[in-house]
Amino acid sequence: MQPNVAAAKEALSHLDIEQSQAAIRAKSRDFFWYSPVLKARLDHVEADFVVSPRSEAEVIEVLRTCYAHDVPVTTRGAGTGNYGQAMPLAGGCVMHLHHMNAVQEIAPGRVVTQPGILLKDLDAATKAHSGQELRMFSSTWATATIGGFIAGGSGGVGSCTWGSLRDLGNIIRLRVVTMEEEPRVLEFRGEELARVSHAYGTNGIITEIEVPLAPAYDWVEMFLTARDFMQAARFAEGLANLDGVLIKLATVFEAPIAKDYFQRVAPHVEAEDNVIGLMVAPQSMDGFLTFLSRNPGVEMIYRNDDHDWARGPGAVFEYGWNHTTLRALKVDPSITYLQVRYGFPEHLPLIEKMRDALSPEVLQHLEVLRENGKVMFAGLSLVKFTTEERLDEIVKMHEDAGAMIFNPHRYTLEEGGRQSVDDRQLSFKREADPKGLLNPGKMIAWDDPSFGFDEMYAYPKMQAAE
Amino acid sequence: MQPNVAAAKEALSHLDIEQSQAAIRAKSRDFFWYSPVLKARLDHVEADFVVSPRSEAEVIEVLRTCYAHDVPVTTRGAGTGNYGQAMPLAGGCVMHLHHMNAVQEIAPGRVVTQPGILLKDLDAATKAHSGQELRMFSSTWATATIGGFIAGGSGGVGSCTWGSLRDLGNIIRLRVVTMEEEPRVLEFRGEELARVSHAYGTNGIITEIEVPLAPAYDWVEMFLTARDFMQAARFAEGLANLDGVLIKLATVFEAPIAKDYFQRVAPHVEAEDNVIGLMVAPQSMDGFLTFLSRNPGVEMIYRNDDHDWARGPGAVFEYGWNHTTLRALKVDPSITYLQVRYGFPEHLPLIEKMRDALSPEVLQHLEVLRENGKVMFAGLSLVKFTTEERLDEIVKMHEDAGAMIFNPHRYTLEEGGRQSVDDRQLSFKREADPKGLLNPGKMIAWDDPSFGFDEMYAYPKMQAAE
Repeated sequence: MQPNVAAAKEALSHLDIEQSQAAIRAKSRDFFWYSPVLKARLDHVEADFVVSPRSEAEVIEVLRTCYAHDVPVTTRGAGTGNYGQAMPLAGGCVMHLHHMNAVQEIAPGRVVTQPGILLKDLDAATKAHSGQELRMFSSTWATATIGGFIAGGSGGVGSCTWGSLRDLGNIIRLRVVTMEEEPRVLEFRGEELARVSHAYGTNGIITEIEVPLAPAYDWVEMFLTARDFMQAARFAEGLANLDGVLIKLATVFEAPIAKDYFQRVAPHVEAEDNVIGLMVAPQSMDGFLTFLSRNPGVEMIYRNDDHDWARGPGAVFEYGWNHTTLRALKVDPSITYLQVRYGFPEHLPLIEKMRDALSPEVLQHLEVLRENGKVMFAGLSLVKFTTEERLDEIVKMHEDAGAMIFNPHRYTLEEGGRQSVDDRQLSFKREADPKGLLNPGKMIAWDDPSFGFDEMYAYPKMQAAE
Repeated sequence: MQPNVAAAKEALSHLDIEQSQAAIRAKSRDFFWYSPVLKARLDHVEADFVVSPRSEAEVIEVLRTCYAHDVPVTTRGAGTGNYGQAMPLAGGCVMHLHHMNAVQEIAPGRVVTQPGILLKDLDAATKAHSGQELRMFSSTWATATIGGFIAGGSGGVGSCTWGSLRDLGNIIRLRVVTMEEEPRVLEFRGEELARVSHAYGTNGIITEIEVPLAPAYDWVEMFLTARDFMQAARFAEGLANLDGVLIKLATVFEAPIAKDYFQRVAPHVEAEDNVIGLMVAPQSMDGFLTFLSRNPGVEMIYRNDDHDWARGPGAVFEYGWNHTTLRALKVDPSITYLQVRYGFPEHLPLIEKMRDALSPEVLQHLEVLRENGKVMFAGLSLVKFTTEERLDEIVKMHEDAGAMIFNPHRYTLEEGGRQSVDDRQLSFKREADPKGLLNPGKMIAWDDPSFGFDEMYAYPKMQAAE
């Protein structure tokens, strides 16, 4: 099965095909460079061509054509993911969905949209229509697409209230095109959603999305400080446990993250300050301030609706989730990160244990998250990178302690997830992508069912570096 | 200090004073008769006169005048409470706030209103204005007032998501008039709210209320059945723990409550059926149905948007909370109830234990409730009443097992609450009601600070039965 790239490109030449080589390179990349491990392995990866369909019919045409010519297809939104999700490991076609950005229906509590719209633009449309917004979004809200978020993300700003994308109710319906001789269009709901959500486009292309909405409020964004790190963590947890106080973000940054990496916050904090970033609904501010007054030692230093900072910090959520790492990286290129699950009810002792063992080599960055109705934490810890061996050792220390790692230094679904085969995704890939052309190299279960996870997976058909 | 009722009534004769003796009797009563214990003690209680102020200025005039003449003032909304909250134990003046029903401001996430508006009418106004509704309301939504709910209620429909009225954030601001020689008007927020919320009007009269709003949805109301009671309880808990599925009600009725007491549901269930009553947001129905399909043994028998019942059951929430008891009472006058707290994480074992010990003398009626971020249950158990001694014994069995009782067979704040003095309410009463004229007999701490709670409190100045 030798891809005939030239034939496929020629057959699709009436579509929007990228002509600039620099743009092809740019559109073959995502934020994989957050990871020095992935940077060392994927930096050379590049598509043979990039096509931007304008409709579902054109998506079908791309898939039918590439199927006929055995050309791999890697689909992308804005490419803000950082597990290499959108990188065409075997070259071939990158299908960019930015033209498919129409909002199709807005109703109380839900929206139907094409996948290529930016999260920011989708929120603007639903807010203008009826004062509604997405329940959750990634910190790359301003630049990322809803389709990329659903195909490659897990949760984000809003997950402190609504849980994760995978939780029942956070996606209502996905419309999916298969990559077969004659592509089919399928509609998934309920249990079927797990086949294709967070599957990196390895087994179907999402062309329409229905998700629930929440009311849009003028969220009060704040920074607080606490000298005692565990107090900061308990404060964030306690706030999230206030059933009557509506929040959208509760983030904790261990000292000296804010002083060292948050340029516009740094003048207002000391190196010893742990910082808490929050978004609280305006109608909940009285309740919040009452809670705050019950926690001496925690001080508010900034609120976006009333402050005297000469230079505002911008959106507080753009300090949280993956933006924390981004800001740290810009200051210190040796910084990378981990994604950790600190599960209820052991979350606080686990955090304390990992911090005691690893700070300051690993600095705690915590995001409040709900899972099965309980407040717990996701850790997006900042790691001072030295060697891959040490990084693996740090991962193992977390796992041995009982803190699950979603390893962002791996480019496969399994290694970035729970290190186990997802039968629903695999069996749907067998049906929807019989030639294995969709985003190849990302599903170990497809390529190497007997893989043992004792070392990093290396996709054998990876494009050779020149 | 002898009240001069005639002088006070004469001085207020230019206000709306009730003339009919039958109406005075009706407006001196609430739903105290849910309790045979209270029925035996309060049935004769009656005000000397009833006045209905039309404004805060008139409220002030009533309080100033009654203060001058040493006349007790018991304030009421619709009188749907069932702890005898609104009953004038010492006679005197009943102040009825039904004229004060103006909605003053509606904004995203909050409403400012006078206290005398019906919950139903307030919801209609906020829904028409901007698709919003109250976070929580009592099952007496159609007949009760927001002021009565806040002064005498604790939570209700919506508490499965938002917690209780006492939780931070569920009341934003209360405006309160004191009963002094010259009444003062105070504004309470934050910690101050606890002085007067759920204080039965014993230490101030609420004349304006600001509460948060939630989005109004066309809630899908359902009944489900399960043959296994504990499965029904676990189902309700599991549903409430789904962070991505938005609900407003999750109620569990032990068999044969539905068969015996729910007239319009009875034809569709067997005596062995435990019944679950739910309100789920329409955008969450897909997630809900997926969850339901994971729970074989739980069957949906009714949904309000798609059913073939010849005679619909009406609003499902009018089967829950205190309406369960009301429906049972109408069929069997010997039924009364208890209010139980089954706290996380022991809620399910506690429920099972009490059921094993007491069913069918006590039938479990559970309401999902959030407390400190955790899903747990309030029990509004149906009790087949025999004697006061046996009722006290049943109360004690619960308390001994670790299930707190808010005893609805008592008319004082303390006995209906946590059996302890609320210093915030007491000290504010000293300041705001120096003569002790507001709703006398309801705050033991005021009348008998040394009371030991080893028997039922008997207010010594209670009106004598004729």
